[in-house]
Amino acid sequence: MTRIDLNCDMGESFGAYRIGNDEAILDYVTSANVACGFHGGDPSVMRATVQLAAAKGVAIGAHPGYRDLEGFGRRYMAITPETARDLVVYQVGALRGFARAEGVELQHVKPHGAFYNAAAADRPVADAIAAGVYEVDPKLVLFALAGGELEAAGRDAGLRVAREGFVDRSYGADGKLTPRGRPGAMIHDEETAVDQVLRLVTEGKIRSLEGTDVEVGAETICIHGDGPNALGLAQAVRERLERAGVVVQPVGAPD
Amino acid sequence: MTRIDLNCDMGESFGAYRIGNDEAILDYVTSANVACGFHGGDPSVMRATVQLAAAKGVAIGAHPGYRDLEGFGRRYMAITPETARDLVVYQVGALRGFARAEGVELQHVKPHGAFYNAAAADRPVADAIAAGVYEVDPKLVLFALAGGELEAAGRDAGLRVAREGFVDRSYGADGKLTPRGRPGAMIHDEETAVDQVLRLVTEGKIRSLEGTDVEVGAETICIHGDGPNALGLAQAVRERLERAGVVVQPVGAPD
Amino acid sequence: MTRIDLNCDMGESFGAYRIGNDEAILDYVTSANVACGFHGGDPSVMRATVQLAAAKGVAIGAHPGYRDLEGFGRRYMAITPETARDLVVYQVGALRGFARAEGVELQHVKPHGAFYNAAAADRPVADAIAAGVYEVDPKLVLFALAGGELEAAGRDAGLRVAREGFVDRSYGADGKLTPRGRPGAMIHDEETAVDQVLRLVTEGKIRSLEGTDVEVGAETICIHGDGPNALGLAQAVRERLERAGVVVQPVGAPD
Amino acid sequence: MTRIDLNCDMGESFGAYRIGNDEAILDYVTSANVACGFHGGDPSVMRATVQLAAAKGVAIGAHPGYRDLEGFGRRYMAITPETARDLVVYQVGALRGFARAEGVELQHVKPHGAFYNAAAADRPVADAIAAGVYEVDPKLVLFALAGGELEAAGRDAGLRVAREGFVDRSYGADGKLTPRGRPGAMIHDEETAVDQVLRLVTEGKIRSLEGTDVEVGAETICIHGDGPNALGLAQAVRERLERAGVVVQPVGAPD
Repeated sequence: MTRIDLNCDMGESFGAYRIGNDEAILDYVTSANVACGFHGGDPSVMRATVQLAAAKGVAIGAHPGYRDLEGFGRRYMAITPETARDLVVYQVGALRGFARAEGVELQHVKPHGAFYNAAAADRPVADAIAAGVYEVDPKLVLFALAGGELEAAGRDAGLRVAREGFVDRSYGADGKLTPRGRPGAMIHDEETAVDQVLRLVTEGKIRSLEGTDVEVGAETICIHGDGPNALGLAQAVRERLERAGVVVQPVGAPD
Repeated sequence: MTRIDLNCDMGESFGAYRIGNDEAILDYVTSANVACGFHGGDPSVMRATVQLAAAKGVAIGAHPGYRDLEGFGRRYMAITPETARDLVVYQVGALRGFARAEGVELQHVKPHGAFYNAAAADRPVADAIAAGVYEVDPKLVLFALAGGELEAAGRDAGLRVAREGFVDRSYGADGKLTPRGRPGAMIHDEETAVDQVLRLVTEGKIRSLEGTDVEVGAETICIHGDGPNALGLAQAVRERLERAGVVVQPVGAPD
Repeated sequence: MTRIDLNCDMGESFGAYRIGNDEAILDYVTSANVACGFHGGDPSVMRATVQLAAAKGVAIGAHPGYRDLEGFGRRYMAITPETARDLVVYQVGALRGFARAEGVELQHVKPHGAFYNAAAADRPVADAIAAGVYEVDPKLVLFALAGGELEAAGRDAGLRVAREGFVDRSYGADGKLTPRGRPGAMIHDEETAVDQVLRLVTEGKIRSLEGTDVEVGAETICIHGDGPNALGLAQAVRERLERAGVVVQPVGAPD
Repeated sequence: MTRIDLNCDMGESFGAYRIGNDEAILDYVTSANVACGFHGGDPSVMRATVQLAAAKGVAIGAHPGYRDLEGFGRRYMAITPETARDLVVYQVGALRGFARAEGVELQHVKPHGAFYNAAAADRPVADAIAAGVYEVDPKLVLFALAGGELEAAGRDAGLRVAREGFVDRSYGADGKLTPRGRPGAMIHDEETAVDQVLRLVTEGKIRSLEGTDVEVGAETICIHGDGPNALGLAQAVRERLERAGVVVQPVGAPD
């Protein structure tokens, strides 16, 4: 049996500001990464998002980011590893409060935006994030870029790690994501994107930008919720995977 | 056996900004109200404060406030009861993250500043706060102004409530605190303050500003940590109570 | 010659969060109230809004609000008059920076949301706002609810005041706005709204909710930019006024 | 006549949080860099600082920083040049509001902390800062690390630039500051620090960490206000310079 998890960022609205299409996209994904108030989200949005995900049977995870609402957590900030660890404990703890309030358990933690990128590239920051997650709950699954520093840090810290692949990003011959900004980094064609996911999930391989096949492992696939055709892509990915016999379910679902 | 708890606000520093004298005052109090990042405190300050309190055997509670760092949570904000409830869940959850990280349990929740005052005066807000606390952990003790709306709301929600008295505030003949700003509201003389606490704790009575005796019950006494002689007052209160045979211990200590 | 100004709140987006339909609505209004970063807006949004308004020949004003992004400045905050004054100087000064950068002058200042309401009801706050505006530039026109405290405070401070009327709000027999939340406070029917504005502008009267005629003076009319049919209403108001021969132009336009 | 300006960061308190010793240090410096609310400072602190500096005859400048109160503006943030420019316009504009309110003119702009460092190292950011300053007022003097990118950017933008030297930092044989964290980067001995300033001001040279003499030009010297003996050092520097016949006055003072 081949299985995969589809995850999407959620709950990034703030006060009067609405962003994303959470309710619709929750019909196609199996894990929700819920913003925790630093790069997006506020307490009432967090509760509403937990309720919505729980009602649709979608597993819930914390999505901690830099304290940078203006930049939506997408700008690198030179915080220390200690600050990174405490920022994780704070935000995961806050979301856990809402999970308890709504009678559900958190499944996972996935750092957001520039914090995710720093975690993939900087081992001390990755170790700090893993330590923070472990401190709050060692049963939490850590979502990490396949092959990045956070994957290694999570395993070394004793956490279960789910490697993450991407629907709409191309990979190089070294198995790494093509950096944003480089030509070909984004996959804009829906069919190409869906084909890449299917092969990644069923064969553990993708066709690199250079044209060679490269092995990429992933237990969860990131679906971006904020593109113009995000909903269509999520639907297409889910249908194609299920048609191919892949079981789409949360990483934390029992075997 | 007569027993009482002494509580003090803590962990209100933020980034490069230092405020309070936490380490010294922790030698005299038995419950620490730890700021949770909205009116004061940041993730690293929260961790350090939890560590310090735990090392000194002081019970730890959450001290949620309005989202108003500029006003230090002392300015009334017209938030809805729903927002109040979610603000409590968020902040208590965040501090619980640090308590778990440090291997300790939270004992209590005490709203901060203008939020505390609103909770004492406004029943829907009080109900919302009590609901938020209960949702996160029904075993948490709610600290509430003796005789205020939050005391009643906490009991109705099924929480254990600890009524709170004050060292440096005078009471009226109706058993209520003299509003700040009125003449005589603050007790500036240390001996008078200590005498009031001793009688409140041992007899359940205080001498009101009008000169009559009035019954005031309290399971915990608030020691302000930020006055010029806060440390001296804390020390004097503790010594006088212990000399009188009162057992000074956290409200959550076993009987 | 009968003339009137139509004003609308603008530039309330923040970072990745988009709100409002500024570009379209600027075709129908003559004064733009630009958010200054406290309740909405950020530096780059402020510049873009000033550029857009300038390009369309719309007069530009500052729209200072409480420091409450989460509440979008719609929640009352108990700030002191001194804080109110300094908050005005800060925000008006910041917008003036962008006006200088883009080579335009500010025409007016209009407090936002709950700050506007406090200014209409609380004379010390109204005086503080008027003082702050005057300090930055005594030539700025102060937009104030017709008949409220800010109107009087502005005149006493030596400012030119433009009384403000509303398109989609009903008035009582006393000439005051029906408080939000009361039945009939909002005018949902476009034709009724347009009729009210036309009569207010041409006759200085409106039909109160009680059915009596009441005198209401206004030099500027507030068009809300965030309703579902805001654009349609703005267009309808403008066309009806111009068809009736009213000159629609900024309050600061030369006679 | 040899002349020099002594500048110091000021007005970095925020709400209930007090930092620095502004009033005392203003007796020894000639230019005050006033925080503008992003890394420190709030509107009321800004007004009070402008009043204090004006009363003591100290020239006033804006001290814009990253939007990072938690990090006190000392953490690098990967903002775009456009954001950097707009952040400068916003903050300088806001302080200009208070300068107008108090009837004084701004003399200069000096970026704060990590923003200052980015400006010295990154030419596009430096150009953006210079452009923002020029847009608000082309007569403002730009304070820039001697030999850094901001010095060049400021001159190319048409601004008057004042090169800045440091009292308590060592220089390498290349004339650049020894990076913080390297051994010997900080000069802890007061006499050594004062000697370095005197020679820098009178001869345009300093003794580098490697022991060679190196030419360093400076029109203004940065005095840090937050060290344990900041006040003593400021006083010693001022006295030694004046004893040597150096005229200590603001950069903007007439020749």
